[in-house]
Amino acid sequence: MPAVDKLLLEEALQDSPQTRSLLSVFEEDAGTLTDYTNQLLQAMQRVYGAQNEMCLATQQLSKQLLAYEKQNFALGKGDEEVISTLHYFSKVVDELNVLHTELAKQLADTMVLPIIQFREKDLTEVSTLKDLFGLASNEHDLSMAKYSRLPKKKENEKVKTEVGKEVAAARRKQHLSSLQYYCALNALQYRKRMAMMEPMIGFAHGQ
Amino acid sequence: MPAVDKLLLEEALQDSPQTRSLLSVFEEDAGTLTDYTNQLLQAMQRVYGAQNEMCLATQQLSKQLLAYEKQNFALGKGDEEVISTLHYFSKVVDELNVLHTELAKQLADTMVLPIIQFREKDLTEVSTLKDLFGLASNEHDLSMAKYSRLPKKKENEKVKTEVGKEVAAARRKQHLSSLQYYCALNALQYRKRMAMMEPMIGFAHGQ
Repeated sequence: MPAVDKLLLEEALQDSPQTRSLLSVFEEDAGTLTDYTNQLLQAMQRVYGAQNEMCLATQQLSKQLLAYEKQNFALGKGDEEVISTLHYFSKVVDELNVLHTELAKQLADTMVLPIIQFREKDLTEVSTLKDLFGLASNEHDLSMAKYSRLPKKKENEKVKTEVGKEVAAARRKQHLSSLQYYCALNALQYRKRMAMMEPMIGFAHGQ
Repeated sequence: MPAVDKLLLEEALQDSPQTRSLLSVFEEDAGTLTDYTNQLLQAMQRVYGAQNEMCLATQQLSKQLLAYEKQNFALGKGDEEVISTLHYFSKVVDELNVLHTELAKQLADTMVLPIIQFREKDLTEVSTLKDLFGLASNEHDLSMAKYSRLPKKKENEKVKTEVGKEVAAARRKQHLSSLQYYCALNALQYRKRMAMMEPMIGFAHGQ
């Protein structure tokens, strides 16, 4: 476990093997976090789904209790008492349904939503910036290779200047994308802990 | 709605059109009750299913919270706090899981089971006895038809006695099965109200 806790932006331009190696540690961590977040989200959505199904189930039960009255029993003598008792139970189930509905809403807003936002915003941003950084690095490598393959004759000075400009532009692009990528990876480390705890605080409050 | 509330057993032997008509009222009532019971059972099983799914979902969530520790994050600095907080939440979820498990068990025992027993015992008994009564009535009708088709000559006395015995046996059988059927239909009227209310008393207690 490295002692550092962030990627230094001033190292981005030099892009040394040490920096690359540290980058790979941050990338591995982000990968583990993405897998874990997906599993955690799945577990949380299952709890939310069960809570939601409980809303629908209590709703159906309440309706079914009221439906006794409308059955047109051929022998309905003495049913008034059953009907009024089932009405009472239907109200009890309705009250419970209100609680379940409120709880389902809270779980959606304070537990599931934050972790979805963390995935969609923070993790997706890192993954997008990783791709962009990879593309910029490739472009830079290609222009460097092109430059090094140029014949060393004097008459090629003009072409050399052209390709040199290309290399400089590619390096600027790669530098910029690495700065953005490092920033996102650093921010992820900063967000990670809160992102794991926030939904459970919402969950505990809901209960 | 007829003023009577039970089938009189002393009417069973005579099997008059009035008794048959009253019987059909009781049968219609039992049919409506069977349909309603099946719908009520389905609604109750849905509530039980949601409660059971909530047990499994909270179990999975608790495990997933503990799993954070085992992720081997490449950058684990400062994770001790997250781990201990997630352990705490895992315990909260476990306690909730105990409640959900207890509630699911109660729903199964005091809500779903009584209505299943009512269906399997009372409603199935009525339906079986209806079939047996139908068979016995058919047999009786056939032996009566056979008797009435006998030629009225004197030399047939012996055959007539034989068939007469058959008719008497069939009538006894039909009488017996109608007594059992009437008893079950009367008992159903008696059980019906309690059977509708008992599971909801169990449900309200559970909550």
